[in-house]
Amino acid sequence: MMTAEIITIGDELLIGQVVNTNQAHIAQRLNEAGVVVKGMTTVGDNLEAIVGALKEAFASQDVVIVTGGLGPTHDDITRDAVCTFFKTDLDFHPPALENIQRLFEYRGIPLTRINRDQALVPRGCEVIPNSLGTAPGYLFHRDGHTMAVLPGVPYEMQTMMQETVVPFLEKQNPGQVVRHRTIKTTGIAESILAEQLGDIEALVPSSESLTLAFLPSPAGVRLRITAVAPDAETARRRIAASEERIRAKASKYIYGVDDEDLEQVVGALLQERGWTLAVAESCTGGLILDRLTNVPGSSAYVERGYVTYSNAAKVRDLQVPATLIEKHGAVSKEVAIAMAEGARKAAGTTFGLSTTGIAGPSGATPDKPVGLVYVGYADAEASLAVRFTLGEGRRRVKERAAQAALELLRKKLLKD
Amino acid sequence: MMTAEIITIGDELLIGQVVNTNQAHIAQRLNEAGVVVKGMTTVGDNLEAIVGALKEAFASQDVVIVTGGLGPTHDDITRDAVCTFFKTDLDFHPPALENIQRLFEYRGIPLTRINRDQALVPRGCEVIPNSLGTAPGYLFHRDGHTMAVLPGVPYEMQTMMQETVVPFLEKQNPGQVVRHRTIKTTGIAESILAEQLGDIEALVPSSESLTLAFLPSPAGVRLRITAVAPDAETARRRIAASEERIRAKASKYIYGVDDEDLEQVVGALLQERGWTLAVAESCTGGLILDRLTNVPGSSAYVERGYVTYSNAAKVRDLQVPATLIEKHGAVSKEVAIAMAEGARKAAGTTFGLSTTGIAGPSGATPDKPVGLVYVGYADAEASLAVRFTLGEGRRRVKERAAQAALELLRKKLLKD
Repeated sequence: MMTAEIITIGDELLIGQVVNTNQAHIAQRLNEAGVVVKGMTTVGDNLEAIVGALKEAFASQDVVIVTGGLGPTHDDITRDAVCTFFKTDLDFHPPALENIQRLFEYRGIPLTRINRDQALVPRGCEVIPNSLGTAPGYLFHRDGHTMAVLPGVPYEMQTMMQETVVPFLEKQNPGQVVRHRTIKTTGIAESILAEQLGDIEALVPSSESLTLAFLPSPAGVRLRITAVAPDAETARRRIAASEERIRAKASKYIYGVDDEDLEQVVGALLQERGWTLAVAESCTGGLILDRLTNVPGSSAYVERGYVTYSNAAKVRDLQVPATLIEKHGAVSKEVAIAMAEGARKAAGTTFGLSTTGIAGPSGATPDKPVGLVYVGYADAEASLAVRFTLGEGRRRVKERAAQAALELLRKKLLKD
Repeated sequence: MMTAEIITIGDELLIGQVVNTNQAHIAQRLNEAGVVVKGMTTVGDNLEAIVGALKEAFASQDVVIVTGGLGPTHDDITRDAVCTFFKTDLDFHPPALENIQRLFEYRGIPLTRINRDQALVPRGCEVIPNSLGTAPGYLFHRDGHTMAVLPGVPYEMQTMMQETVVPFLEKQNPGQVVRHRTIKTTGIAESILAEQLGDIEALVPSSESLTLAFLPSPAGVRLRITAVAPDAETARRRIAASEERIRAKASKYIYGVDDEDLEQVVGALLQERGWTLAVAESCTGGLILDRLTNVPGSSAYVERGYVTYSNAAKVRDLQVPATLIEKHGAVSKEVAIAMAEGARKAAGTTFGLSTTGIAGPSGATPDKPVGLVYVGYADAEASLAVRFTLGEGRRRVKERAAQAALELLRKKLLKD
């Protein structure tokens, strides 16, 4: 199994001005090539710090991917650091200059000396072409260790990884693949899910090089199965069997896999059957509708929605009886049901979905705390509401309530 | 000047499943406390790797911030690594258990043994309370070096940084402050804003240790002024003078500062004057309402909202004449105005705001491309609509349209 370290360079990363998305992208690409990332390091535009990081990584891992600091200005010193580390000088590389000239001609701007200098590359490297920018990359292969040095501009780096670095690594690393499968759950706490699953080793046997990770988030706990296998088919088979064992223990809480969101799962169920939906949101304030309408094609089933913050809106738009609100309060099971029924009826849709609750920080009463939310549901035959207590933090309550509402709808669509 | 290293822990980072946003957040907070980040390291859930990273960082920097791997399940081993590194054992910490019990009681779910075990903390640390989650943090201060160990869940970590870690570091680090001020603009491109500002050195003189950064985003370009000063008062004074010079050049595009979002600015303007708002969204699908209702207290002025995806909804709920839709199409200036007027009338509010457009990827026609959006506005005296072309990408179109609508409302509220 080949191992790797990712080194990202730039002062903008150290002051937190930029979120480091290159690391995750490179890690994914390496993983797919069967290279296991052992660590990631970020240093500033500082010669000593860069050389130190290169030294340590190159000595301890098979592969080192370096990005950032290859631009034309004075603060870009990665090339100097690479020369220092490999004890080499710069050579002029004519194809790199041709590429730079082509880019400047295309943009219709005059070539400057500092751009021309980007065609100077460390002696002894294989040059990685950069069709989208002026900075070429450098590939070194010494004593079984590989170092690829790439610019930090994401789309340039990504193209160079795909076109040159990954194919090179795949040739070095035959007979070894890493695959992942993420199973997404919601409505169950991490610790309770862990108890429900029981003996983890039985689900993901280490004898088959399988591992399982628990990844909690406001949307629910994700379970990630990882397989290291000699080939893609074996990895696929082992993961499928493991997924089946996990589903047998916790199917009730599983709504999707990998990149699937609940709004996509629910949307696909609605669209498949030609069903339509109307949503009436109070405490979630539009978040459910925003999520549903992020899905391309959602206009086929999201007929309309209401954000009924005021009681007057609940009465006028959803035909919730004012007496019902007086008797039970706007945050109640009865009003949640009436909202879902009212939205469904006004819109003439297959289903109605509603939320009413206390997102906070104000609005709580002794018997109705912040985080109390009722989710209402209505179809042609029946309607119901479910009570949730979702903690504190206005945005968090909104997120959890939206997730709970979409999950309730998913279960009803599946006739659970 | 104190120096720091940030260590983030988790296999999900090494496989690229999660983009590491914690690093940037922590770096910003340390910066503001006058602590310079020298490096960032990411390692997996592996005892040897974690202990190695702790050793190296604690020996070479004044401050080490560690996040991740404090959860209750078998793959969370950061606490073990911390004990190994400090050669210490676990102690039971009663307040941490009380906090865990409180969270479980509140959520109405039974406490499990593995959650109870989170109340065991490394002996000799100062416990960092975690009011939002079950994992307490640990603060060590040895031989002038500080290590803070925090959970990886972003909102828990952020709260613990703000409430405990940053105040602790500020006490360690007198006589040097770094302060930032971010001026938020929208509706103007980065290059045009740069031209409008002119000579940057005159706005942020380097003689006063001021710098300016341009930070573009889908919500608009932010301008960040940074001051390094001997004390907070000097930093404040220099930044205020610089901000005034920048405002004199570009006030028209500036809607807020620092963490202020447009929904907060608009919300404050509405609340101050006792005004109310109704929103009718088509292409933005609930995003404007979601943003407005994220602001605590927004129920005072967000009377209600409509997500009228279908024509039937526009006709029934907003009284848009069906003939108007037939004549001009749902995506038109006329319908945008009628939607804003209809929402305002139905809700009896001071203002009505609306969007109608083509978020894509489908729905475009030769004369109405993806990204075409009309924003409508209505008050007691007048109504109008403004046309925008906002590019492609469904989510991006929604975000830009929501921002354009809120900015139009802000300008109208200020009678621009």
